[in-house]
Amino acid sequence: MTDLGKSAVTVLGLGAMGTALAEALLAAGHPTTVWNRSPARTAGPAQRGAAVAAATAEAIAASRLIVVCLLDHTSVHAVLDGQELTGRIVVNLTSGTPGQARELDARVAERGGDHLDGAVLAVPSMIGTPDASVLYSGSRGAFDTHRPVLEVFGAADYVGADPGAASLQDAALLSAMYGQVAGVLHAFALVRSAGVTATEFLPRLVGWLTAMGGFPADAARRIDARAYADDVDAALTMQVTAVRNLVRAAREQGVSAELIAPLVPVMQRRIDDGDGGDDLAALVEVITAEEVA
Amino acid sequence: MTDLGKSAVTVLGLGAMGTALAEALLAAGHPTTVWNRSPARTAGPAQRGAAVAAATAEAIAASRLIVVCLLDHTSVHAVLDGQELTGRIVVNLTSGTPGQARELDARVAERGGDHLDGAVLAVPSMIGTPDASVLYSGSRGAFDTHRPVLEVFGAADYVGADPGAASLQDAALLSAMYGQVAGVLHAFALVRSAGVTATEFLPRLVGWLTAMGGFPADAARRIDARAYADDVDAALTMQVTAVRNLVRAAREQGVSAELIAPLVPVMQRRIDDGDGGDDLAALVEVITAEEVA
Repeated sequence: MTDLGKSAVTVLGLGAMGTALAEALLAAGHPTTVWNRSPARTAGPAQRGAAVAAATAEAIAASRLIVVCLLDHTSVHAVLDGQELTGRIVVNLTSGTPGQARELDARVAERGGDHLDGAVLAVPSMIGTPDASVLYSGSRGAFDTHRPVLEVFGAADYVGADPGAASLQDAALLSAMYGQVAGVLHAFALVRSAGVTATEFLPRLVGWLTAMGGFPADAARRIDARAYADDVDAALTMQVTAVRNLVRAAREQGVSAELIAPLVPVMQRRIDDGDGGDDLAALVEVITAEEVA
Repeated sequence: MTDLGKSAVTVLGLGAMGTALAEALLAAGHPTTVWNRSPARTAGPAQRGAAVAAATAEAIAASRLIVVCLLDHTSVHAVLDGQELTGRIVVNLTSGTPGQARELDARVAERGGDHLDGAVLAVPSMIGTPDASVLYSGSRGAFDTHRPVLEVFGAADYVGADPGAASLQDAALLSAMYGQVAGVLHAFALVRSAGVTATEFLPRLVGWLTAMGGFPADAARRIDARAYADDVDAALTMQVTAVRNLVRAAREQGVSAELIAPLVPVMQRRIDDGDGGDDLAALVEVITAEEVA
């Protein structure tokens, strides 16, 4: 099943994502060694041909490429700290913050290893299909050398030498998604409060969001040029009134506005600074410039 | 210029939107009477053939169809209360809440008039083009009779007999849009904090949001069936960890998380209720069921 011409890979951590990663490697013919804190989860990969390591040191000794997919960075440090990593490339796919990725990079370097930090843009069932994509940052050399292995998981994109870059861009993408989720769920709650089903409202909602699809591109242009006051269709002074109306409408209907209302003080701070004629894109400056709580 | 075979229309209020409405009517050949609190703004429409009324009673007497587009509902009541409205159809396009629309409906009925409440899904420059659309609710008879006039502004959709329905659906659409705006701006702020321009990040962001485009349809199906625990790809317990990570990542980078962080307590309330295995769509129940502040 495994192909000795292909690089050996170790996978540390067999949660849903780690298991999907190990199985994609096995399906692609890579000699694969697995380790998991609780051994029960190694049975599946073992049946498909994986070698099972009883201890982390043994797992790390088995391959140059060490894929780490654990619960959080505390678990990553518990597993890697104190290990001999000379000649090893640690590909960390455990979710974390940019700061945690930078910290891990320093620790791996201290132990003689090289580090790539990755952010998986996929659910486990997508791993190994063209729908999965993984952002990588850190060692460019490790990325270039091991790209064929990394592409077993899905599209592999290198986003920068800062080890935190992948997790930062992942955080940005997820934030955009959660913003959309919050808005859509608030919308469905509102119409349902007046007896309109979500399915009934869906075509209008999707049509509207599609019509608004030019916002990211327009905002990007304004943000990069700091051109917030040029050709403004709907100034912040007008928009803050609209959002206040939305908050009132939600309360009238018995829907909590807590996912939408936080825009009001952000808009108001820009208006109070004398820039009420600006476009919405100017709010980027407010959330960047403010003291962070 | 005006066509006597077409219905006469009065427009009360010549802000940017009211002016666009009056000009669309004039361009379509409707005998149009305009009134504005400050007379200076009547000059443009007058040049294009509008009759200018010096007083609101005169403006209301001039046409059966009275389009009202003022600053807010306080202004609407200041203009309409106490007027003789027998035989008149008040088409209110002033932004407001569903409750304000219902209140206006009652007042117009007391004065002998019929009422349609509308929500304009367009900026003024789109009025009279196929890109504009207006939702109407209230008197079905008035909508059917005057539909040809209403279609001068853009697509005309009747959404229900409850006079508040148009403004409610408008609030829902705007909420969805503002959610997306908040997420996208937070994303741009994050990447910029690491030296990545918005323009550079844009293709990845748009590709990701497009890939996530199935969320509204999936959520609608779950909400209508209250089927939040079936075939869940990413349970709330996992998602709340992801959102907490995003909040931490933002703070590390000096970006305020105030537009994203409000999701955490909403998710946590569902988890605390024992439904941590649910899909994100279940948050509709949290924002509906809670005491509204």
